[in-house]
Amino acid sequence: MTTIGLVLYPRFTALDIVGPFQTLVDVPGFDVFFIADEVGPVEDHTGRLTMSATKKFDEIDELDVVVVPGGMADSSIGDDDPVVQFVRRIHATTIWTTSVCTGSIFLAHAGILDGLEATTHWASYDRLRELGAIPTEKRVVQTGKIMTAAGVSAGIDMGLVLVAELVGEETAKAIQLAIEYDPQPPFDAGSPSKVSPEILETLVKIFNL
Amino acid sequence: MTTIGLVLYPRFTALDIVGPFQTLVDVPGFDVFFIADEVGPVEDHTGRLTMSATKKFDEIDELDVVVVPGGMADSSIGDDDPVVQFVRRIHATTIWTTSVCTGSIFLAHAGILDGLEATTHWASYDRLRELGAIPTEKRVVQTGKIMTAAGVSAGIDMGLVLVAELVGEETAKAIQLAIEYDPQPPFDAGSPSKVSPEILETLVKIFNL
Repeated sequence: MTTIGLVLYPRFTALDIVGPFQTLVDVPGFDVFFIADEVGPVEDHTGRLTMSATKKFDEIDELDVVVVPGGMADSSIGDDDPVVQFVRRIHATTIWTTSVCTGSIFLAHAGILDGLEATTHWASYDRLRELGAIPTEKRVVQTGKIMTAAGVSAGIDMGLVLVAELVGEETAKAIQLAIEYDPQPPFDAGSPSKVSPEILETLVKIFNL
Repeated sequence: MTTIGLVLYPRFTALDIVGPFQTLVDVPGFDVFFIADEVGPVEDHTGRLTMSATKKFDEIDELDVVVVPGGMADSSIGDDDPVVQFVRRIHATTIWTTSVCTGSIFLAHAGILDGLEATTHWASYDRLRELGAIPTEKRVVQTGKIMTAAGVSAGIDMGLVLVAELVGEETAKAIQLAIEYDPQPPFDAGSPSKVSPEILETLVKIFNL
C-alpha cells in the first residue's frame, strides 16, 4: 500500500485538502488518512466546517506521501509549529512531500524549500520568498520529490498529477472522469492578472486583508 | 443573513459539498452550516473522511439555499429517505434548491424535478430519467429556482453561479480569485466523450461498477 497522510491543523482551508483527497482516495493500493497533532475533530478557517483526523503525528514514523493544505494559520506559525516539525521529520521518509496553497509556508519553515522553486497562493509569494524559496507562478511545481500547488482549488490539479506520477496516466484520467473534472467556471477571474482592480478591492474587503 | 444549509448523509462524496462550501462560506451576509438527519459526524462514501453536521433537519423550518451533494447512497434510497423528506419540505421555503452530482437523485425522489431539465453525474443520467426528470448534459442547469450541477467537481462552478445570482458577479469573481480557481487539469479526461474506452474500463474496475 502507498500510505498518504493528509494534514489537518486549526484554521486549515477545507477545499485545499478535500481536492487532493477526492483524487487520491479511490485509487486502488492507496491508503489515505487524515492526520493532525491530535486525533479528533479539527476546525477550518471559517469555523463552519469540522473534519476529523484519525492518526496523530506522533504515531507516524513514515509516509509515502504527505499533503499539507493552506489556511489562515500560516502568518503566525514559527519553526516549532507541530506541522512544521512533522514535515521536517517525515520528509526524510516520503516519495512525495506536497502542499496546496499556503501549505508551502509550512514546508518553507521546515527548511525543505531553501533555494528551490515552489508555489503558493498568489497573495503569499512575498512571504514564501522571505522564507528562502523561489516563488513560481505555476499551477503545480515539481522540484525533486517536492510538489507544491497554487491556491486552494489547485489541489485538484496537483492530485491528478500525483496519481499520474505514482500509478500512471490511465488511472489519473479515470479518476478525472470519475470526479467529472471538466471545469467550466462561469467567469475567468481565477488569477490576479485576469481581474480588474475593482475585483481585487472586493476581495480585500471580503477577507479584511 | 442568507441561510445556506449544506446537507450531509452517510456515504456522501466530500468534494461534492466542500466545493460549494468554499465558494459560499466567506461571502459577507451568508450564514453557511452543515445539516443532517442528526447532529454530529457523518462518514463519506470512502469511510476515510468524517465531517460534522451542526444542525439537524428537524430543527430547520426554512432555508434560503439548500445544497444536496451526491454520493454512493443514492441507489438504495426511497421516498422515505430523511434527505428526500427534508428536501420535499424545505423546498417550499427556499430561494434556491440545489444539488451536485447524484444529489439530484434525492431532488427527483422528492418529486420536485418532474418533467424538468436537470443534471447529475454522467453515469446517472438514466436513473434521473427513470425518476421523471429530463437529464441534460450541462455543467450547471437552472430551472426556475432549482439549480443542479454535474458530477463532483461541478459543485465549484455551481457555487460561483449561486454567488453571482444571490449577490452579484463582482463578488463571485472575487471569490473565484480568492480560491485561485484557474483550473489547469493535467489531462482532458473530464467527460465520457473525451476519453478512450480503455479509460472507461479502468474507471469501471476502480469503482467495481
